[in-house]
Amino acid sequence: MRPSGRKLDELRAVSIETGVTRHAEGSCLIRCGDTHVLCTATIEDKAPSFLKGTGLGWVTAEYGMLPRATNTRNRREAAVGKQSGRTQEIQRLIGRALRAGVDRVALGERQIVVDCDVIQADGGTRCASITGGWVALRLAVNKLLKAGAIVSDPIVDHVAAVSCGIYAGQPVLDLDYAEDSEAGTDGNFILTGRGRLIEVQMSAEGATFSRNEMGQLLDLAEAGIAALVEAQKAAV
Amino acid sequence: MRPSGRKLDELRAVSIETGVTRHAEGSCLIRCGDTHVLCTATIEDKAPSFLKGTGLGWVTAEYGMLPRATNTRNRREAAVGKQSGRTQEIQRLIGRALRAGVDRVALGERQIVVDCDVIQADGGTRCASITGGWVALRLAVNKLLKAGAIVSDPIVDHVAAVSCGIYAGQPVLDLDYAEDSEAGTDGNFILTGRGRLIEVQMSAEGATFSRNEMGQLLDLAEAGIAALVEAQKAAV
Amino acid sequence: MRPSGRKLDELRAVSIETGVTRHAEGSCLIRCGDTHVLCTATIEDKAPSFLKGTGLGWVTAEYGMLPRATNTRNRREAAVGKQSGRTQEIQRLIGRALRAGVDRVALGERQIVVDCDVIQADGGTRCASITGGWVALRLAVNKLLKAGAIVSDPIVDHVAAVSCGIYAGQPVLDLDYAEDSEAGTDGNFILTGRGRLIEVQMSAEGATFSRNEMGQLLDLAEAGIAALVEAQKAAV
Amino acid sequence: MRPSGRKLDELRAVSIETGVTRHAEGSCLIRCGDTHVLCTATIEDKAPSFLKGTGLGWVTAEYGMLPRATNTRNRREAAVGKQSGRTQEIQRLIGRALRAGVDRVALGERQIVVDCDVIQADGGTRCASITGGWVALRLAVNKLLKAGAIVSDPIVDHVAAVSCGIYAGQPVLDLDYAEDSEAGTDGNFILTGRGRLIEVQMSAEGATFSRNEMGQLLDLAEAGIAALVEAQKAAV
Amino acid sequence: MRPSGRKLDELRAVSIETGVTRHAEGSCLIRCGDTHVLCTATIEDKAPSFLKGTGLGWVTAEYGMLPRATNTRNRREAAVGKQSGRTQEIQRLIGRALRAGVDRVALGERQIVVDCDVIQADGGTRCASITGGWVALRLAVNKLLKAGAIVSDPIVDHVAAVSCGIYAGQPVLDLDYAEDSEAGTDGNFILTGRGRLIEVQMSAEGATFSRNEMGQLLDLAEAGIAALVEAQKAAV
Amino acid sequence: MRPSGRKLDELRAVSIETGVTRHAEGSCLIRCGDTHVLCTATIEDKAPSFLKGTGLGWVTAEYGMLPRATNTRNRREAAVGKQSGRTQEIQRLIGRALRAGVDRVALGERQIVVDCDVIQADGGTRCASITGGWVALRLAVNKLLKAGAIVSDPIVDHVAAVSCGIYAGQPVLDLDYAEDSEAGTDGNFILTGRGRLIEVQMSAEGATFSRNEMGQLLDLAEAGIAALVEAQKAAV
Repeated sequence: MRPSGRKLDELRAVSIETGVTRHAEGSCLIRCGDTHVLCTATIEDKAPSFLKGTGLGWVTAEYGMLPRATNTRNRREAAVGKQSGRTQEIQRLIGRALRAGVDRVALGERQIVVDCDVIQADGGTRCASITGGWVALRLAVNKLLKAGAIVSDPIVDHVAAVSCGIYAGQPVLDLDYAEDSEAGTDGNFILTGRGRLIEVQMSAEGATFSRNEMGQLLDLAEAGIAALVEAQKAAV
Repeated sequence: MRPSGRKLDELRAVSIETGVTRHAEGSCLIRCGDTHVLCTATIEDKAPSFLKGTGLGWVTAEYGMLPRATNTRNRREAAVGKQSGRTQEIQRLIGRALRAGVDRVALGERQIVVDCDVIQADGGTRCASITGGWVALRLAVNKLLKAGAIVSDPIVDHVAAVSCGIYAGQPVLDLDYAEDSEAGTDGNFILTGRGRLIEVQMSAEGATFSRNEMGQLLDLAEAGIAALVEAQKAAV
Repeated sequence: MRPSGRKLDELRAVSIETGVTRHAEGSCLIRCGDTHVLCTATIEDKAPSFLKGTGLGWVTAEYGMLPRATNTRNRREAAVGKQSGRTQEIQRLIGRALRAGVDRVALGERQIVVDCDVIQADGGTRCASITGGWVALRLAVNKLLKAGAIVSDPIVDHVAAVSCGIYAGQPVLDLDYAEDSEAGTDGNFILTGRGRLIEVQMSAEGATFSRNEMGQLLDLAEAGIAALVEAQKAAV
Repeated sequence: MRPSGRKLDELRAVSIETGVTRHAEGSCLIRCGDTHVLCTATIEDKAPSFLKGTGLGWVTAEYGMLPRATNTRNRREAAVGKQSGRTQEIQRLIGRALRAGVDRVALGERQIVVDCDVIQADGGTRCASITGGWVALRLAVNKLLKAGAIVSDPIVDHVAAVSCGIYAGQPVLDLDYAEDSEAGTDGNFILTGRGRLIEVQMSAEGATFSRNEMGQLLDLAEAGIAALVEAQKAAV
Repeated sequence: MRPSGRKLDELRAVSIETGVTRHAEGSCLIRCGDTHVLCTATIEDKAPSFLKGTGLGWVTAEYGMLPRATNTRNRREAAVGKQSGRTQEIQRLIGRALRAGVDRVALGERQIVVDCDVIQADGGTRCASITGGWVALRLAVNKLLKAGAIVSDPIVDHVAAVSCGIYAGQPVLDLDYAEDSEAGTDGNFILTGRGRLIEVQMSAEGATFSRNEMGQLLDLAEAGIAALVEAQKAAV
Repeated sequence: MRPSGRKLDELRAVSIETGVTRHAEGSCLIRCGDTHVLCTATIEDKAPSFLKGTGLGWVTAEYGMLPRATNTRNRREAAVGKQSGRTQEIQRLIGRALRAGVDRVALGERQIVVDCDVIQADGGTRCASITGGWVALRLAVNKLLKAGAIVSDPIVDHVAAVSCGIYAGQPVLDLDYAEDSEAGTDGNFILTGRGRLIEVQMSAEGATFSRNEMGQLLDLAEAGIAALVEAQKAAV
């Protein structure tokens, strides 16, 4: 009944290839089905100015999409002259999510910038960015630890994300574009490796939903994220 | 234990004054404690171009904050030359929320723009904007109905919003700025008059939360929104 | 003969309500008939960089108009991405006018920013902004004096403004929108409490005017501003 | 007593050289002392969209200053990415002034754009732009008349401008930069060939002025403009 | 003597992988050593407005670089709010080069947009973009031919590019970043499959060069491009 | 056979008038036929931040074109809000070219900004800007030498530029607009006074060219530039 033939609670095939670019301190290419995101983590010696002298670190994210990552070409945001509201909303979300898994005291007064660039899109790009972005962050932090720049590990847990929604009346896990564009209700769920919630964003376009449906989607998300965390563990 | 002396499940005093500007088709000034938002609804004869010929209407929102609505002065976005990511995220949310309470076929091929301008801020401005924005929208639609421009009422239900969060270890309703800036977890809940969910956004900054806590916040929100809907009914 | 039924030399009803926002150091809501402007004054400890080390203070102004302050909705300048020429011209004028009433040595090396935001417009918004802006400035300076931050009062006189024009062949005081859009010649007059001139801007669109007419308008302005200064005195 | 040795009521040497660029429909280089402005007039077959179908024409102006027209280099506005408030204020003024001398019915539904680019600045650039801009406009309209594109002359009178101010306690005509930067009160006066007033802008920075002083400056302006109009007549 | 150990006239290893994204009409990932560029071609039914009604087609290009394609992170142009001069110069060059190999009558009144996004940079990104961009263009045109949308092949020849320069006193082929940042003279050479010149850009930073050196670099380029054209042939 | 009646190897009449603006440290108006460019050089005491502490100087350039320098009016870049790709490409070229003739150690840690503003255009504006820009630079440096601010002359040679192209099948020198808009192949050649090459940019729009043709154009350029260098010598 799903366009892809997947079961209701079935994730798309996920692969996380690390070390894909030569320059970044941490990097991976995450593929969730046909959604492919290149994630790189850059270590900067300086924290943002609002943290000067606090001893606290910062993790932030930027998000972009290549013009032809989608079915029809999108105008390049650099040519338009600004990032869309959607782009800004997504990159703020990624940054918040990753910070929730980091001990900013242990990180010390420096910044890690995680860039998530969508090479090919088929729904769920913000979730793939978070799951892959965490891997890039993990690898960059490993480099700091190995170099002795920091002594205790600032990463306190895995962070991963998945979308769920009500498609054709049924709660389904990990929506692809065909499902996402039809679903009246969908949500993004960001959890830690231990299953704690970091962020829940459920939204109805043209429909409304009940507490019961919300619970069903959360059940799906918990299972899906457990699998994504396993993929992260295998990758790093 | 709350800075304001309110009980855990106590809303701030809410007042909704309608007809506050002479020009708008619908308007109100909503006050949720010290958060004051001026909401106006403008009817435009043309729908956005992506709806041309579909017979469907559109509701959209814009959000702004006066420079000295806050404790320290914010730079004027018009002078900066762009709307911040936060502003864009909020106005997208308001628009989505209001559309969820509208039958776009009954509205017909026209657009209603809801402007929410924060005159004074003390936390919860996006929620007040949604609750007040619905009132402005309702009044503008009444004008269309009265004029015979549309025949059946496109507004299918009330839409109202409230924030809840975990403050000092306790779930509390309707956070003010003092609470909001301390809460590790908080969320915005948008519901219909019948208690259906439109949007749930829960987020942890520097903490994580459990499904149980999520349920407690939702309980608070349901009660709070019921009271806000009563205030809307009294106003229109 | 005037659309409003006013006499040729009759001001609109003016009211100045102070202390209207909780956060600003000085604030008022000025109503000149249906033109309503919220004015706030913000004290900043630092003067602009071009004054560094001079011991001189600065007063500046910013002006905005809510999208639906007018009969048809204006695009939000923050969304457009820049302030219009008209907005910039007006805020430069307000700043210049207020500085003319301030002893910048007595103010000391700090800046006061006066924000004038038009809530509802019916002509004469720049004049109302100056008259109301002076009240907000006065209240903020009072706070500095009371706190002992400055010892001698830097405000040397009242500053108020009014428009006059030739409507239907007659010189009239305090044009509302209906008159303003018809008048071939109009002007803005900014005077001190003692009746000295700060700025005179007379302009003909589609007509020209004589020295004699200029004198008549100035006569009207002098009388009008005397009444506005009384309203300022009552307010502070 | 004036830095230049001029008498109080003495204009700077003025020259107006026409036909200075090969491409423009009308052009001149106006020199008022060391202030040199290149003015070109471009005829466009289409009027602005707000005039579509009205049969009315439009005259508009743009103003610019070469980066090294001034004593220290100004940043190029094209590189900064926007026109300053000052630039916009000036070009709005030039356009308004020139339109006051034009019969827009006789012009017909077309637009003339007058570009005023300051090659070298020594005070009074906006006045020189108006006086020279009128010459460029006149020449372009002559071309339309000669070509039979319009039948009756849309130019109803000369338009010229001059600044006056109170320098070292004395009213002086045609301020140069050395005077302008010291004058507490100054003004720009725009008059027609017959001596009617189009625009008066008097402003006090750090001083105020009386009606009597205003009259003295206007006396100076009337005499100065009569001479400038003679220079225009000689040029065209 | 070259940092990479390559011979003076030795290209970096080149690979061209086609069909790398699901959505684009033509695509390839070109790798010239450690420089990796993703090239996609998008067919648009409409030509730019300046070609309306001419029957002529257009090929244009856009260029971007992921923030961490380089050794230190570059600011994202979409976040900065504009494309740099360098970016614009490069994308204008790519577009010009590809158009030189296309019969715009045979293409018909449509546009093909070639996006070149640098995933990893090690010198020579503009040349790799041209060589890879041609492959993407070729594949997109093949789709048009296969679909019968056009009847005769608009691609008249291969287009490929390579850089050469004088490094440590010696003319070398295909500079990598280590060489490029040291070379006093370098150039980009764009040739057709038949060896005709499309564009030559030679430039000296801090040195000058002779006609003889220019000839030596061109000799190297001709050989290098012959090999790149073979790689293109193998790929399509 | 050339539209202007010139011989194939004949430059347009060139004149270089120096000292044309009162404020700039060096200035000239260069006229190459109907192409007129005003060049000014500004000495700034500070070098760009990337050179801080190196003892090295910098020469940079900015380029602009008055709106009516061309046959039809161009939109003012300051009004558009950004410099076009073409403008940026040209000003980068001018800066690179002039730096090639300067010993940046001898210049010392300061910056010279060369502004090239096209007053009237008839093809070849970038070449005229380089040739004239060098004169302005030379005059500004003379001032530094005379004042004793620098001791040894940082200008190591003349820098001049000319365009050549294939027009109607023939190689011609110094293309005017009529030729430039028809030429399938053209190029810009920048040489030193001793005949060394600084930059060669040859480009084919809609044609390709051979090595032999490239040589013929370079022959023409060498002769043309020798004459331009003589004009520079006469001017300074």
